[in-house]
Amino acid sequence: MSSTGRIPNYDDVVDAAQRIAGHAVTTPLIESAVLNERVGGRVLVKAEMLQRTGAFKFRGAWNRISQLTNLERRAGVVTFSSGNHGQAVAAAARLSKINSTVVMPRTAPNIKLENARSYGAKIVLYDPATESRETIAGAIASRTGAILVPPYDDPRIIAGQGTVGLEIANQADKLGVRIDLVLVPCSGGGLVAGCAIALKERFPNADIHAIEPEGFDDTARSLVSGFRETNDGGTMTFCDALCVPTPGEITFAINRRLLTGGLVVGDDMTGAAMRTAFRDLKLVVEPGGAIALAAVLFGLVTAAGRNIAVVCSGGNVDQAMFSDVLSQSD
Amino acid sequence: MSSTGRIPNYDDVVDAAQRIAGHAVTTPLIESAVLNERVGGRVLVKAEMLQRTGAFKFRGAWNRISQLTNLERRAGVVTFSSGNHGQAVAAAARLSKINSTVVMPRTAPNIKLENARSYGAKIVLYDPATESRETIAGAIASRTGAILVPPYDDPRIIAGQGTVGLEIANQADKLGVRIDLVLVPCSGGGLVAGCAIALKERFPNADIHAIEPEGFDDTARSLVSGFRETNDGGTMTFCDALCVPTPGEITFAINRRLLTGGLVVGDDMTGAAMRTAFRDLKLVVEPGGAIALAAVLFGLVTAAGRNIAVVCSGGNVDQAMFSDVLSQSD
Repeated sequence: MSSTGRIPNYDDVVDAAQRIAGHAVTTPLIESAVLNERVGGRVLVKAEMLQRTGAFKFRGAWNRISQLTNLERRAGVVTFSSGNHGQAVAAAARLSKINSTVVMPRTAPNIKLENARSYGAKIVLYDPATESRETIAGAIASRTGAILVPPYDDPRIIAGQGTVGLEIANQADKLGVRIDLVLVPCSGGGLVAGCAIALKERFPNADIHAIEPEGFDDTARSLVSGFRETNDGGTMTFCDALCVPTPGEITFAINRRLLTGGLVVGDDMTGAAMRTAFRDLKLVVEPGGAIALAAVLFGLVTAAGRNIAVVCSGGNVDQAMFSDVLSQSD
Repeated sequence: MSSTGRIPNYDDVVDAAQRIAGHAVTTPLIESAVLNERVGGRVLVKAEMLQRTGAFKFRGAWNRISQLTNLERRAGVVTFSSGNHGQAVAAAARLSKINSTVVMPRTAPNIKLENARSYGAKIVLYDPATESRETIAGAIASRTGAILVPPYDDPRIIAGQGTVGLEIANQADKLGVRIDLVLVPCSGGGLVAGCAIALKERFPNADIHAIEPEGFDDTARSLVSGFRETNDGGTMTFCDALCVPTPGEITFAINRRLLTGGLVVGDDMTGAAMRTAFRDLKLVVEPGGAIALAAVLFGLVTAAGRNIAVVCSGGNVDQAMFSDVLSQSD
């Protein structure tokens, strides 16, 4: 069993999978003949935009919230989030019949704000340029007694996100495929850490890469230096879900041990990956969710002859932004 | 075994499922908590845009082409199609290493024309206002000896499309769900006929409806009159895949026996369904593919408390058209 601060292991991910069963969606592993031909390898897309609330985050949120004690449930939960974790906490809280508060940036996509609200969360907006979301959420927790559900740096959250990797392993087994390479979008690092725990157990020789947007390559640089590096903060990206300034403590402790490295993708490549997902996979992927697909499409990894698991982690993108991406050409 | 002119039965669909196994995708049955809550029933979306070539049509094309004799294979195949069947025939022919010719309207979406070409088909364009695609394709067949692969009015095509229904039944069984209602997009009627053969065998009490766009409700009217009715032809729809003027002979013989009725959906409702699929299902659905979803969203059927299978039959839509649909509001 996981407790705060402990590094989760494979058994914790298996336990999480049992907890989320019947609540989260076992998302399909989707393949496109056109895509395979283009990259010369076998690309297995883990379609987490089809997850409840439109992103993988529900897995971790449910794994955490379902372990609250009765006393903890009474005070409800609070979280801070760029949007997808906030929606997931709101939905998991509503299904668990407890109150939730989500601290979100004013700049979050409308679809994420509206959805979090529609799941019944109280939304507290902040200005990401001048305010600290951790401080605001911490103050709410102190004042109300609400339990803080962090977006990534928590062993139960990481174990929950790891069920993405566990399902990939099970689905690959069913296809008779050995996974050689795994590409996972990375912000705080919870998803890639959880996936690495599950997938390194099942495919010990697989190379696992964290994929980040340009200017937010803190995990890539930290994996090189061995220390938790911080982004300068002067850069912009349309990957609104991937803007954490530095890796988590627990997530980095896992990732430095299990990952092959980090890869960095420009927004132009990510936009092209969104168009490829639209045209060839028929999937709606948000920018931060398409970044790992971009890495394989633009040859940042050797795809030829390899079986590649690509996590497309979310699909919560505003109609106007998606139209704008579609109006551009490759 | 099916032969031309014979009405296919459940065993033909089961045989087709064995033939397409390993070639076609077993597409997932996708569910959204948000959508279920909105309509008050359980909506199971059969995601055929995830099929090879982006629409269900590959199933029938493969079932037909894989039954060609060696002699027939040498002359190749010819077909006429609004686009999705043409892509499917082109892809199935290429995988079978035979030549294909596709007669397509000049007005077909670019994505459908380009894809059919990219699969290696010879494309012959015609003007749907002044020319007959059947005549053009028939002349090519006579001249070259190529085997005509019709888009719907053929027992092997119908049995192939029926594997959509067979998979729905198997997937529903696995979920422990009894299907009460089935909504299927309809043009020539091959998909709904095949689905009805499979699903009426497995869920005899299920109501099955053919869904058509306004102005192209020939099947709905034919089911009422008992005769194959023809559309006036003065109307336009953006459901480019659903513009056949009259039901097929074989398909109508099946549909009049097995369907509860037909339902008619306006393009404005279909556009709203495409936006719902984008927002809540994260799926790219083309107009003709979204029409059955529109029927349930707009209350054309009683959804409350029922288990409803909705076939979303394709996702081949141009970027500009999709952006245009996203730019509108509900």
